[in-house]
Amino acid sequence: MKNPKSKFRNPKSIYSMPNLYVALTHYPVVNKSGDIITSAVTNLDLHDISRAAKTYGVKSFYVVTPLKDQQVLAQRIIAHWTDGSGATYNPARRQALETIKVIDSIADVVEDIKSIENQGPKTVATSASRYPSSIGFEKFRSILKTDRSYLLVLGTAWGLAEGFISEVDYILEPIMGSSNYNHLSVRTAAGIILDRLLGV
Amino acid sequence: MKNPKSKFRNPKSIYSMPNLYVALTHYPVVNKSGDIITSAVTNLDLHDISRAAKTYGVKSFYVVTPLKDQQVLAQRIIAHWTDGSGATYNPARRQALETIKVIDSIADVVEDIKSIENQGPKTVATSASRYPSSIGFEKFRSILKTDRSYLLVLGTAWGLAEGFISEVDYILEPIMGSSNYNHLSVRTAAGIILDRLLGV
Repeated sequence: MKNPKSKFRNPKSIYSMPNLYVALTHYPVVNKSGDIITSAVTNLDLHDISRAAKTYGVKSFYVVTPLKDQQVLAQRIIAHWTDGSGATYNPARRQALETIKVIDSIADVVEDIKSIENQGPKTVATSASRYPSSIGFEKFRSILKTDRSYLLVLGTAWGLAEGFISEVDYILEPIMGSSNYNHLSVRTAAGIILDRLLGV
Repeated sequence: MKNPKSKFRNPKSIYSMPNLYVALTHYPVVNKSGDIITSAVTNLDLHDISRAAKTYGVKSFYVVTPLKDQQVLAQRIIAHWTDGSGATYNPARRQALETIKVIDSIADVVEDIKSIENQGPKTVATSASRYPSSIGFEKFRSILKTDRSYLLVLGTAWGLAEGFISEVDYILEPIMGSSNYNHLSVRTAAGIILDRLLGV
């Protein structure tokens, strides 16, 4: 670049940071039998996914549950590491966990992003199944470079309910390894998805 | 391929499966202050990493600790999902956890692989730091296609002790996301590393 100052004037530089938000939802998800349930918050989901979100420059990591007691539990875990003794003991953990917002529903996440971005995000479901409309990682990686925000939704338990999946803008293809086994934990899947979409 | 049968005769096809073993070690690792310690076994490390190992066709996943009570704990977790009620409840979990071998030391892992492969594996350390001799993921991905076995070693706590790292055959470069923050959990790092090395 001939004039170093120009990078501050180039509107493209605003979008060099990914405009991606991530939500881990505990409703609506399905259990082993395919029934729609509200799953319980898992401590290490909050730690692992917030650390991955921070690593890959995700704007916010939403933890979604309609259950008030589960919201309190999630807030208590976060507070330990952001305000409590954990914050002094492990500042790197604080930086990750302070990106978390605990919220009632995906609809509320969309509203929150709308208030930040002045436009609702495009929604993206993740699934261990392939749908006729599933899009590939490379394709979505290039879509992410366009000038708008995206909300990637991860399901807990046995995954996102079909009713929810049918309403999103995009469905991301499943992660296939080098075997037919595809039963990754949501923590591991989140890391791999972010690496494929945003890794350098 | 003109003659479909030829694929069974082509010696290269033997090596289409990765010849990679993974070890998660609890000794020798360092704590926050850099002291060498033996860390405690974490339940979800066993679940998440065995599931990732199974997904990417890793040959065995070794859980390494010299502490007998920790070995008993790890075996109890594994047995619940491979022999206990968990095996019936969740067969996919069984398939993952039955790839785990609990073992005393990295030296014993090397001996075990030697007994299987008739040759000791090349050892590969992972680290969140970059070393002058660190090799890139693409480079190691191509090395993995050569005709011999490799043992990828993951450290718990604050990572593998320097003394151990100085003795391995290869050091893998750290995972860098799109920020300067690199504090992934070992569970997430394991998934991303396997995806980068063996993902299709």
